[in-house]
Amino acid sequence: MARADSAETVTGWASRRAIDLWVVLGPSVHLAAAAQDGAIVRPVDDPSTFAIFETMRSAGVDDVRRVGVAAREVAGLGAGRRAGAGAVIGVADVSEQAAALLAAEPDAVVAEAEFADLYALRYAADRPFRPQVLLNPGPALTSEAVKRAAAGVDMCHREPEFTLLERGLREKLLRAAEVGTGWRLALMSGSGTGADEMAIRAAVRPGRRLLVVVNGVYGERLRAMAERADIGVVVSQRGWTEPADPEEIELLLASEHDVDAVAVVHHETTTGLLNPVAAIAKTAQDFDVRVVVDGVSSFGVEDLTLEESGVDFLACSSNKCLQGLPGAAFVYVSPAGLERLAEVPPTSVYLDLGAYLQGEDRGSVPFTPAIPALAALDAALDELFVVGPAEHRRRYAERAATLDAVLAGLGLEPIVAPEHRSRTVRSVPLPASLDYQPLHDELKRHGYVIYAGQGPLAKEIFRVCCMGTLEPAVLEAFGHRLGAAIERQAVPA
Amino acid sequence: MARADSAETVTGWASRRAIDLWVVLGPSVHLAAAAQDGAIVRPVDDPSTFAIFETMRSAGVDDVRRVGVAAREVAGLGAGRRAGAGAVIGVADVSEQAAALLAAEPDAVVAEAEFADLYALRYAADRPFRPQVLLNPGPALTSEAVKRAAAGVDMCHREPEFTLLERGLREKLLRAAEVGTGWRLALMSGSGTGADEMAIRAAVRPGRRLLVVVNGVYGERLRAMAERADIGVVVSQRGWTEPADPEEIELLLASEHDVDAVAVVHHETTTGLLNPVAAIAKTAQDFDVRVVVDGVSSFGVEDLTLEESGVDFLACSSNKCLQGLPGAAFVYVSPAGLERLAEVPPTSVYLDLGAYLQGEDRGSVPFTPAIPALAALDAALDELFVVGPAEHRRRYAERAATLDAVLAGLGLEPIVAPEHRSRTVRSVPLPASLDYQPLHDELKRHGYVIYAGQGPLAKEIFRVCCMGTLEPAVLEAFGHRLGAAIERQAVPA
Repeated sequence: MARADSAETVTGWASRRAIDLWVVLGPSVHLAAAAQDGAIVRPVDDPSTFAIFETMRSAGVDDVRRVGVAAREVAGLGAGRRAGAGAVIGVADVSEQAAALLAAEPDAVVAEAEFADLYALRYAADRPFRPQVLLNPGPALTSEAVKRAAAGVDMCHREPEFTLLERGLREKLLRAAEVGTGWRLALMSGSGTGADEMAIRAAVRPGRRLLVVVNGVYGERLRAMAERADIGVVVSQRGWTEPADPEEIELLLASEHDVDAVAVVHHETTTGLLNPVAAIAKTAQDFDVRVVVDGVSSFGVEDLTLEESGVDFLACSSNKCLQGLPGAAFVYVSPAGLERLAEVPPTSVYLDLGAYLQGEDRGSVPFTPAIPALAALDAALDELFVVGPAEHRRRYAERAATLDAVLAGLGLEPIVAPEHRSRTVRSVPLPASLDYQPLHDELKRHGYVIYAGQGPLAKEIFRVCCMGTLEPAVLEAFGHRLGAAIERQAVPA
Repeated sequence: MARADSAETVTGWASRRAIDLWVVLGPSVHLAAAAQDGAIVRPVDDPSTFAIFETMRSAGVDDVRRVGVAAREVAGLGAGRRAGAGAVIGVADVSEQAAALLAAEPDAVVAEAEFADLYALRYAADRPFRPQVLLNPGPALTSEAVKRAAAGVDMCHREPEFTLLERGLREKLLRAAEVGTGWRLALMSGSGTGADEMAIRAAVRPGRRLLVVVNGVYGERLRAMAERADIGVVVSQRGWTEPADPEEIELLLASEHDVDAVAVVHHETTTGLLNPVAAIAKTAQDFDVRVVVDGVSSFGVEDLTLEESGVDFLACSSNKCLQGLPGAAFVYVSPAGLERLAEVPPTSVYLDLGAYLQGEDRGSVPFTPAIPALAALDAALDELFVVGPAEHRRRYAERAATLDAVLAGLGLEPIVAPEHRSRTVRSVPLPASLDYQPLHDELKRHGYVIYAGQGPLAKEIFRVCCMGTLEPAVLEAFGHRLGAAIERQAVPA
């Protein structure tokens, strides 16, 4: 249900109601909103699984995920759950009755008069909560297995089953990064920004400074993290489409002797620009300076060798190129990074990298972990290994090539030079006379979500990103919609 | 599937396999592990939803969640998904075939020889990943609706549908707290500890100090947060079973004139001790000093009036008494708290309360939010309002009374005096000659997960907590198991 594999899938997402058949089990419920929206509504007396299946057969619906069950009694709701219905709605007009229905684990309990509002939000052909082709740079489209893992069993994080999940996840993440045994991994609950800040705070000894490359919003953010943590900074400022310059880094390291670490964003999501992390790390290594890399929107898709590269702290998140859900973030730490960490007194409790590594030693975590996000990431990595990490990168490269070809066919040239482009994000100048919002809105009506520019670029570009469970055919279909929208919205000169 | 409503449910969780019927759709797959575990295995040629339903009927299984589908082809996996099967497993012995099966969105893809390992982890009668009665202080048992919400549609956090989710969630959280229009709410991705630290960093102006009540692990943690953020502290130290003393707070505030805020844990999960937050806040208000409350394990269940109480920052999490999933945390901020925030320069990017409030103004969030955890919390609040917040608190009080009666019946007296006990956690001295681990393990075999003591209490007590979707009858059944385990394990004098 969340894999954009063809233009037909996307059209279905953009136009179809969520539920085709509503079965009212037991006492009567009036579901006018569903009927008016074109769904089939069938009353059934017998609150049993097989009665629901029979109704599906007679209505010509063969997918339980497109069947809704509404009932006023626990028996009917239970049958809906046992049948795997895509919606199970309890209906009660008195509050004690409503509370009693929770025992049957419905998706929602409403008064009959409230059904129309619930229907409009979740199930109608024009509902706001629907699958769409997410062309924003994460959260990305994720697979059914990833979502189902997030909805797995509740567990206590001090039990062996959590340790089993957590150790397996660590092992997969270390394998995905192809690092040796001296590397460690800190797993936290939060966004990539949290992981970035944790790494920055661990990398610089008191009284030393951080050299930060700034050529986009995320480089600016790394600088702010250091400044707010009272870490002095040296800035290598570049234009937003100019990659970092390793020679400039070398000159700065040669002249500023109190620099303890360099921080750089691998992929500036602001524009889709890759920074030459390998060359910077090599230079820093020559100066015995640690290297912090924001790999939040690059890890798993862009080429980066970690082992003996000079990279010491790599901050990543669960929800972008690895195709997990948002909520978990992590930092890889090199052997030299571990030595540095030991010399830096912690300046935060929640963002204390050392605490997370000590947790690892015990097969645990220092604070209540976001178990659903970890389970989802674990499932996403299983899928990554089914495909193979190298093939995963190759597919992203192929997709990016498709997207570039689609844009070129429309005469659109991304603002970043081809040799510096990532495998995911493209920043495209808005064609003359077009505004972002109407372009966005027209594409969204067809099922595609594009992304605005940030800061000074907000009025000049739009962004298209091809992370997640989507296929090249969908990018081609998107191209047709984009071309048509530009043509329709262009003001004649 | 995750509501502990009776002793029978718990016995089923502890002993039943996850899947009763495996349907092999299309080409043959050998599922020896399932057959040996007592599951029915049926080959079916026709890869259709209705063929699966017919097989269920003939096998006497009426719950699709207890049906597994294994197939070597996309068609069979697709039928399994459309039938709502509880497990959909792709089987492929060559890696290109395995990757191709992902198109059908299976839960996992394995080689035939790997099925036994997957089966042992996820589906066997003695699998580690199974529902259990979680008697630890969060993550707690959550409802099916909460889990399904976490597995909802992928969305971009800059789109109106996210704003709709986020505004609705805010409105519900503010309603649950019964605060007036001057109050604000910061929603973050992380654990309750992250929310605590964000509040601490916002509450104290440079050069001023924080008065911290320390009578448990979480009070210690608040102190560490302040110290690591370079905020001077004044400590009101109490024994771990002694509630904070408002008179001592008053004396300290009268003598230490540079104290800018008081921080106190409402419910010390360490022991199950409630601190007298209302009295402390009232005292602090008299001194015009701000109040930070850790409400992580109390909010929604313990009595606390916020409006005009003197409480200025209340940090909470999604996964305890509100019965959502872990991954989201939030801070309520009073009008006076907002004024304070404006005077405190941010000392972190990720833990900058102001940034989250600015996000609120735009109907957005500063960093990629943990959307699944937010959607789950939204669903949990819907259930809370179906029951009613006052009734929710009453039920927790009733449960705690049941638990106290159960423990008293076994001659076990919690270490916290009755008048200071919370509505959730009980710290119970280990009966003479008993060790924690064997007691824990025996109870776990019957489906109950108890929790160890922390720090110096680790060898002296065990904890029992009644958060989550569980009913008093289950606590009584737990009592019987606990009594039997104590009797069995006690060494004769």
